[in-house]
Amino acid sequence: MPSTQITSAACIGAGVIGSAWAARLAWNGIDVKVLDPHPEAEARMADVLANAERAQARLTMAPVSRRGKITVVREVKAAVDGAEFIQESAPEREDLKIKLFAEIDKFAAPDVLICSSTSGLLPSKLQSAMARPERMMVGHPFNPVYLMPLVEVVGGVKTTRANIDRAMDFYRSIGMHPLHVRKEVDAFIADRLMEALWREALWLVNDGIATAEEIDDAMRFGPGLRWSFMGTFLIYRIAGGVEGMRHFMSQFGPSLKWPWTKLMDTPELTPELLDTICAQSDDQARGVSIRELERKRDDCLIALFQALKTQDYGAGKTLADYEKRLYAQAHAGAAAAAHDFTKPLRLHEAMVAPDWTDYNKHMNESRYLQVFSDASDALLQLIGVNEAYTKRDLSYFTVETHIIHKQEVVALEPIFVETQLLSHDEKRLHLFNVMKHARTGEVLATAEQMLLHVNHAAKKASAAEVPVLAKLAEIAAGQKELVRPRDAGRAIGAVR
Amino acid sequence: MPSTQITSAACIGAGVIGSAWAARLAWNGIDVKVLDPHPEAEARMADVLANAERAQARLTMAPVSRRGKITVVREVKAAVDGAEFIQESAPEREDLKIKLFAEIDKFAAPDVLICSSTSGLLPSKLQSAMARPERMMVGHPFNPVYLMPLVEVVGGVKTTRANIDRAMDFYRSIGMHPLHVRKEVDAFIADRLMEALWREALWLVNDGIATAEEIDDAMRFGPGLRWSFMGTFLIYRIAGGVEGMRHFMSQFGPSLKWPWTKLMDTPELTPELLDTICAQSDDQARGVSIRELERKRDDCLIALFQALKTQDYGAGKTLADYEKRLYAQAHAGAAAAAHDFTKPLRLHEAMVAPDWTDYNKHMNESRYLQVFSDASDALLQLIGVNEAYTKRDLSYFTVETHIIHKQEVVALEPIFVETQLLSHDEKRLHLFNVMKHARTGEVLATAEQMLLHVNHAAKKASAAEVPVLAKLAEIAAGQKELVRPRDAGRAIGAVR
Repeated sequence: MPSTQITSAACIGAGVIGSAWAARLAWNGIDVKVLDPHPEAEARMADVLANAERAQARLTMAPVSRRGKITVVREVKAAVDGAEFIQESAPEREDLKIKLFAEIDKFAAPDVLICSSTSGLLPSKLQSAMARPERMMVGHPFNPVYLMPLVEVVGGVKTTRANIDRAMDFYRSIGMHPLHVRKEVDAFIADRLMEALWREALWLVNDGIATAEEIDDAMRFGPGLRWSFMGTFLIYRIAGGVEGMRHFMSQFGPSLKWPWTKLMDTPELTPELLDTICAQSDDQARGVSIRELERKRDDCLIALFQALKTQDYGAGKTLADYEKRLYAQAHAGAAAAAHDFTKPLRLHEAMVAPDWTDYNKHMNESRYLQVFSDASDALLQLIGVNEAYTKRDLSYFTVETHIIHKQEVVALEPIFVETQLLSHDEKRLHLFNVMKHARTGEVLATAEQMLLHVNHAAKKASAAEVPVLAKLAEIAAGQKELVRPRDAGRAIGAVR
Repeated sequence: MPSTQITSAACIGAGVIGSAWAARLAWNGIDVKVLDPHPEAEARMADVLANAERAQARLTMAPVSRRGKITVVREVKAAVDGAEFIQESAPEREDLKIKLFAEIDKFAAPDVLICSSTSGLLPSKLQSAMARPERMMVGHPFNPVYLMPLVEVVGGVKTTRANIDRAMDFYRSIGMHPLHVRKEVDAFIADRLMEALWREALWLVNDGIATAEEIDDAMRFGPGLRWSFMGTFLIYRIAGGVEGMRHFMSQFGPSLKWPWTKLMDTPELTPELLDTICAQSDDQARGVSIRELERKRDDCLIALFQALKTQDYGAGKTLADYEKRLYAQAHAGAAAAAHDFTKPLRLHEAMVAPDWTDYNKHMNESRYLQVFSDASDALLQLIGVNEAYTKRDLSYFTVETHIIHKQEVVALEPIFVETQLLSHDEKRLHLFNVMKHARTGEVLATAEQMLLHVNHAAKKASAAEVPVLAKLAEIAAGQKELVRPRDAGRAIGAVR
């Protein structure tokens, strides 16, 4: 459980937002009572909780001590009794919420924070019927609440600054990024930006300019990529080049009068507003140069493409398709080039993926084994242990691995593996893999592996089939003059 | 070089956009002549080309055969003579561009495509003075052009569909995602969306609601994350839940009349427009269920957080900070617990996560090493190699690992690791880890590991500090009666 001392909380409402709050709190060791009068509330929550569970298993390898317990209750008193934090996610009706907050207020312990998930209603109104409104505010999350970092914290006229700070600390402790919205305004900040874009998107469909899919593609292959790590002001500052934000504004200011959107209620770009924007942009950049910002932007984009490539989605699929063409051409170029069995086989190449690295950005040791395992798989493919073969319940299993680490390697570096067949018989396959840096050729690690051929149905070791053994014999004959690696057959020595 | 047969191209204009086009084309084996009359054009391009070079080295490890040559020329004729593709990126002045296209048209070979990088000018106007306008169109890229996939392809009244298809194929061949904008409209699609959001952002600053940095944070920790892989229509379809897009529109349709942005020129949400949106949303989803879309969204978000974590930026920094707190708490808990040093230490427990398993549901071999690595980390915490220690640039690195697999284990099974200290000296730490099934006690695998104490700043092995060595001595004294594991010190034997 994170730094907060909170161990119990209440979620008012068990819709998509309320259920996801419950999941996020439970991940953090907090027992949650969820209020939902619906007779099938548990069943309706099940899908969201299952997706949340699945997401958490993928999100982090950090140790999470204890999972909080989620219980559905039918009454406000039962939900908030004993709760140390309360998050309301009822339907977006102001009258309903005002009554609800008054009732929550009555049963909740006096110091407990009460936050609303509303997307746009004003906290001053929502807290108007409460006896202790100073601890009520908006904590507006984004879907899916169990993953999205942003929570907009908005106080009403009666909310104290101390309570806003407490809420910010709490949200931070459960892995979120709280943003204090200092002025109370309909729809706060993020939803105003979303709403403006949405209205233009509806015009584009209305006017027959583009379809929903074309509009979405214009975002996710374009500006949406940058917006995942830099907002519109910083992106435009960079676009202004070394002359900076004032240059950008002088170039693009006039476009506010152009019909570049149907939304023509634009602010007047007065010298005062221009000064404000430039000063705020300077503050935001904190002295980091345009060139440095460009490199940060580029590195984030590349990491993003690599990440989406693992999902074969959006800009990641564009990169994957491009790489497929590049590889196809390279392979076509070396078409007739049969494998040279007199050398170690270079069958597997990889790039150190962003999510393979530790806090210190070095490739995690377990990923070394993954790369070696992929290289051994590539050898199995070469000798005919392919999908058709494993469908007959036959395959090789790794029984033993000895890794020696030589050098660290960081994210996004290119690596490859060379494989030498040390020995084999009908059942066993004894390999020596060497991982090298693709640019420098430096040896990063070695892995000696013993694989055993198994008949999965019979659950025992068995002889490999004849064509596989023939291919192994061919490789062994080719590689027989290769020097045996110095580290092969080595044991880990005791410290004396 | 990709599938295109093009080997030479012209870039008209050497600003940020033109230079980045030149870089992208050169990556793809295309020789580029860049037109820029400025006497210092080469120097001005140098920064962009350097950043592009740096980006490409990180983007892909796919084999790129040959880098094209970039040459600056001073006249249109010299630039387009012999060019097989022409991309114009001159300043955004319609009159200037109309004249420029007429001149390019005169010197370019008759079939060569001529594309404009304009962000919003209409191709029908730009092609109006050309003798062969059928091969002229907009190819609107996004900054940085050498990385961003999107290019909006917009034909004018005289552009042929065949030429649009040729341009789309060409852009695809250089790794981009071309989007055909079917209706000619000011600012096309992406810039209209950007402009709408930008106008609202300016209002927020103008009205003193939020600063440039707060507005950017509201995007990059919130909706901007999702927009990097799914556009606003698909995100809203998911938000509508299993009831789908019509449900979402019925809930949020009324907000078009609310002051949720200052931009109130909204389209009328007629039954016809609603039908169009719902039909287009169904087309876009292609029968994929809401639950599947939710999982795709979650997986992309997680991949994205992991990617940004490697850059210690935005939502990635939020995750990194959260993980730091989780690790600190787990370590504090372990350090506070009393340990019996006469037995192997049980410091690490885990559950086999669903995504740790192969297609056959067995834990992947690389995850065995991950679990052993976590167990060794827990021992390091116990002996005082904690965050404060590693902040002094001191730590242990694994130099060697020998894993022996005994039994398979499947998803969701509980496991733990017992650790025996085999030997140690000032610099070395020799461990034997045994992974067991928590319910049956069955041995699943063993890992013998050698760790080396390093001074990271000095980049060399060094003696551990005195309190660490004292704790190791205490453990060694406690465990001295333990039987040495039979598999310790074993080497992988050759097949005979």
